[in-house]
Amino acid sequence: MTAPTDLDVLMTRLGRAARAAATAMAAAPTAAKDKALRALARLLREQTEALQADNAQDIERAQANGLAAPMVDRLRLTPKVLETVAEGCEQIAAMPDPIGEITDVKRRPTGISVGRMRVPLGVFGMIYESRPNVTIEAASLAIKSGNACILRGGSEAIASNIALWKLVQRALTEAGLPAEAVQLIETTDRAAVGKLIAMPEYVDVIIPRGGKGLIERIASEARVPVIKHLDGNCHTYVDAEVDLEQALVVTDNAKTQKYSPCNATESLLVHAAQARAFLPRIGAVFAAKGVEMRCCPASKAILSDVPGAQVVDATEEDWSTEYLAPVISVKVVQTLDEAIAHINRYGSHHTDAILTTNHPNAMRFLREVDSSSVMVNASTRFADGFEYGLGAEIGISTDKFHARGPVGLEGLTSLKWVVLGQGEIRG
Amino acid sequence: MTAPTDLDVLMTRLGRAARAAATAMAAAPTAAKDKALRALARLLREQTEALQADNAQDIERAQANGLAAPMVDRLRLTPKVLETVAEGCEQIAAMPDPIGEITDVKRRPTGISVGRMRVPLGVFGMIYESRPNVTIEAASLAIKSGNACILRGGSEAIASNIALWKLVQRALTEAGLPAEAVQLIETTDRAAVGKLIAMPEYVDVIIPRGGKGLIERIASEARVPVIKHLDGNCHTYVDAEVDLEQALVVTDNAKTQKYSPCNATESLLVHAAQARAFLPRIGAVFAAKGVEMRCCPASKAILSDVPGAQVVDATEEDWSTEYLAPVISVKVVQTLDEAIAHINRYGSHHTDAILTTNHPNAMRFLREVDSSSVMVNASTRFADGFEYGLGAEIGISTDKFHARGPVGLEGLTSLKWVVLGQGEIRG
Repeated sequence: MTAPTDLDVLMTRLGRAARAAATAMAAAPTAAKDKALRALARLLREQTEALQADNAQDIERAQANGLAAPMVDRLRLTPKVLETVAEGCEQIAAMPDPIGEITDVKRRPTGISVGRMRVPLGVFGMIYESRPNVTIEAASLAIKSGNACILRGGSEAIASNIALWKLVQRALTEAGLPAEAVQLIETTDRAAVGKLIAMPEYVDVIIPRGGKGLIERIASEARVPVIKHLDGNCHTYVDAEVDLEQALVVTDNAKTQKYSPCNATESLLVHAAQARAFLPRIGAVFAAKGVEMRCCPASKAILSDVPGAQVVDATEEDWSTEYLAPVISVKVVQTLDEAIAHINRYGSHHTDAILTTNHPNAMRFLREVDSSSVMVNASTRFADGFEYGLGAEIGISTDKFHARGPVGLEGLTSLKWVVLGQGEIRG
Repeated sequence: MTAPTDLDVLMTRLGRAARAAATAMAAAPTAAKDKALRALARLLREQTEALQADNAQDIERAQANGLAAPMVDRLRLTPKVLETVAEGCEQIAAMPDPIGEITDVKRRPTGISVGRMRVPLGVFGMIYESRPNVTIEAASLAIKSGNACILRGGSEAIASNIALWKLVQRALTEAGLPAEAVQLIETTDRAAVGKLIAMPEYVDVIIPRGGKGLIERIASEARVPVIKHLDGNCHTYVDAEVDLEQALVVTDNAKTQKYSPCNATESLLVHAAQARAFLPRIGAVFAAKGVEMRCCPASKAILSDVPGAQVVDATEEDWSTEYLAPVISVKVVQTLDEAIAHINRYGSHHTDAILTTNHPNAMRFLREVDSSSVMVNASTRFADGFEYGLGAEIGISTDKFHARGPVGLEGLTSLKWVVLGQGEIRG
């Protein structure tokens, strides 16, 4: 056996402390958890100036390193960003406590009553890049859900993350909860991530947030479950029977309301019966907004006639591409079956919508499209924890196991069985 | 890139066929799935003699190989075993279809309605040893839950497994469902398991059933989620306030009703306030049944006086041991806290019970013991899918992620989000 490195020792200490804190957090009263969240909101407001000073260190280093301006902006803890995360903490404090809820209690013929109780998962590891406000989002979800967490933010935000985390620990202590319920990996040693994802004795689940490369690497190397979000290659399908005016508004919103979110539509499928009516009109909208259209032959034939439209041939690769940009792939399909098969083959199982007035088609789409969110007559942009009423979102899972789609407090919990007897024995 | 082996080609074919069948099964009508299950029950009864002839090959080979008699018995497909699995198929057919159920639909302020729909996981791989009836149990759960599965039974039961599987495929075909919804790995090449657990593109989850060594190896090598069941080191804790007569009956049942199941109690904790009253009486019961007691000093001092009792000193290792035999570890604790801490430290998070008349203590035990089943005043032997009313059980999960405790149809499903709109867009 090789001697443990300093990093091994550090990570084991973090892990042990997290496991101990998780036990205390699982049993923590709702009032204490909510008190910690409200204290955190207050501290974020009280310490806005001090936080900005710490944040300035990260900003300066990023600028000195020549980081691109949009990346530098993502680092900024403006008073507005801090107020938003403070309000987020208060909103989570106001939500019902998911922990301890007992449901589905049923009497069995043997006399025992069997039900399920919602409990925390234990310890989660959160790995994220740039935006330091994620430190507070992850911490506040951990506190409310009765979990402990170990946070690993990006090295570019290290000063901001440490400053925010210290406030979290003050808030926990104020509420009589263990400060170790939220720990941050203060070293920027890259090897720490490799350790964090391979400590099943201390960490129950890993939640990575960041680029696809990071998430794929973590998923392939982790020795614990990962709640992961890969691509959002979302589709909007315009069916043969459709309210065309509504379809125009919804398709436009799904693609152009914002280009960068994972729930923006990247591919438009149109039933052949509507292609001539719908495509020229949506094509004109896209042309006006500078959205490039990568087309199948049938859609190209129609869209090429739209004045100002940027129309090119789609390659096979386009059908699986998440552009996150003013680009959309467009395909004419002959049947609903073809649309569903195309989405299940090329999509990323994130969010897909059908626009239709036909009820059986709507129901088939809901059932047969294998995605974490399936929608009828709504913009794919709605796929979001806040829009779904989860109150907060720690990520969007494109997996099927455990949590699927937007993950809020419930995704950080598990159900255990409870059996209430009066001395029953098994015969 | 190295050329694919024959096994690679075989496993890829199995995987592709399973994935295609899973799509069909996800959309299969309830009536077709139930028809297949009833047809399977009928075929099992019609073909009892033929199945026994195939089974005889496995029995003869096992005997020739010198397999121990209890192991040979586990291979036997007696008419009684076949009738039991046939009845199991009919029971599953009679259960409500979990797939397509839409729950928790709520109207959001934006106008959209958001709910969740239960859907199959996709394809599961099942790896099991000896008992060939697991082939039918896994197949019937796959059919009802709208999943496809790839089965890998033990080589010692290969002839029986193939014969049973052919009946499953006949039943699927009779009901108009794809025969590939249930596939069996016909080769006994051990490397097939390694392939099966590392095909995330074709297999969504692995369910191993067998010895701890097998399950640990699969869990560490799998590249997809594993629903796994490791030890069942279950505790019964006799609290300070307790109905002693009831505690005697329940503790006896929990330990001695059967020694081999994973939900049998392996460790008895007794509050110091009841040690002198309870231990001599349960000690006499255990002595009469030949149950060896491995004791802490305090319990040893009391139990050594029981006539005929086999009392030895417990080692540190005893507290974590699943005996599956007429052996129990015994410890006197000073407080409920000590009992809970002991269970969470040494237990296997399977099933633990408190025997008490004190309500706050019962509630604390339910909440703070971190096990998949927590019980009050009932025998740990009740931790079982049938006893819990799941209708069937594909395994007992000792993990927290996704499924926890007995896993029935629901553990083979996932919830996706459904959004029902009237043309709403995001502002």
